[in-house]
Amino acid sequence: MARTTFYTAMTLDGFLADEHDGLDWLFVQEQDEQGPLNYDDFIKDIGAIVMGATTYEWLLAHLEKSGEGWPYAMPAWVLTHRDLPGIDGADVRFAQGDVAPLHDELVAAAGGKDVWVVGGGDLAAQFAEAGRLDEVICYIAPVTLGAGRPLFPRPFDFELVEVHQNKAFIAARFEVRGPR
Amino acid sequence: MARTTFYTAMTLDGFLADEHDGLDWLFVQEQDEQGPLNYDDFIKDIGAIVMGATTYEWLLAHLEKSGEGWPYAMPAWVLTHRDLPGIDGADVRFAQGDVAPLHDELVAAAGGKDVWVVGGGDLAAQFAEAGRLDEVICYIAPVTLGAGRPLFPRPFDFELVEVHQNKAFIAARFEVRGPR
Repeated sequence: MARTTFYTAMTLDGFLADEHDGLDWLFVQEQDEQGPLNYDDFIKDIGAIVMGATTYEWLLAHLEKSGEGWPYAMPAWVLTHRDLPGIDGADVRFAQGDVAPLHDELVAAAGGKDVWVVGGGDLAAQFAEAGRLDEVICYIAPVTLGAGRPLFPRPFDFELVEVHQNKAFIAARFEVRGPR
Repeated sequence: MARTTFYTAMTLDGFLADEHDGLDWLFVQEQDEQGPLNYDDFIKDIGAIVMGATTYEWLLAHLEKSGEGWPYAMPAWVLTHRDLPGIDGADVRFAQGDVAPLHDELVAAAGGKDVWVVGGGDLAAQFAEAGRLDEVICYIAPVTLGAGRPLFPRPFDFELVEVHQNKAFIAARFEVRGPR
């Protein structure tokens, strides 16, 4: 059965990004890219991804600035009410409305592989509320911001399945239990 | 050299308590009381404690409700601008103003033992900003609340020193590095 995972990094005080969607606090941290719960191992099993409009726009700006190409080989969905530009040569599809039928589409597109909810926190929470999120894997950076974009803006219960140190980070995996 | 530690529990999304100062989400979690970074081992080395007014009032209400006595053998300071009641038979002292001279008092009272900053997050951050906080030990519960009392309402850098699973919790220790 394909799994649906919110794989993300956050601060110790629970923010995915600062108030201006900045990730400066993240990129300065050391990690072992072959270490526990690493991205390369994770992405190998992913057959489809989904993100919110803010995450997509952040990514577009980041790619434009860095000159890098679209990094994902698998189909990507962007959940948005707005008209957003596509990317040449990238399989990016736009959707709106309920996440349950969208999740069915994602699972079908993944063809037996897993689904990655890239972010943000509100999108991950929508998937969880619809009973469509299996787990959260988070890298917790040793930083507090005091304000920013919340990890998961809903009361929810999880179960800690594994936790490791990966250089500067706590790397932890949680099963989603349900709303509190 | 005596160490000053913010030892606390929080949610995965960085809250020390819910918006009504409630800890219901905390007391339902399983922990091994002899496990890593446990309270009994921690409190043995503590010679003085300090808390903010909200934490003190929460504790008073909790003790009144449960019928338990004041749980601390060492002198306790409460940082407050208000007139708060003491507790019969408890060594509770009230202070206000800068935390640096208060910290000197705490260290002196601890007599070579360590100092515990009980909470809340703003008090811990005041100690850190004054250069008077050495470390943060936190138990991270597998829960999100979406809103509540923040862990550490300031931009700060830490260094992860150790991390463990203690039943339901991530138990982690961080050195305080400095303001971001």
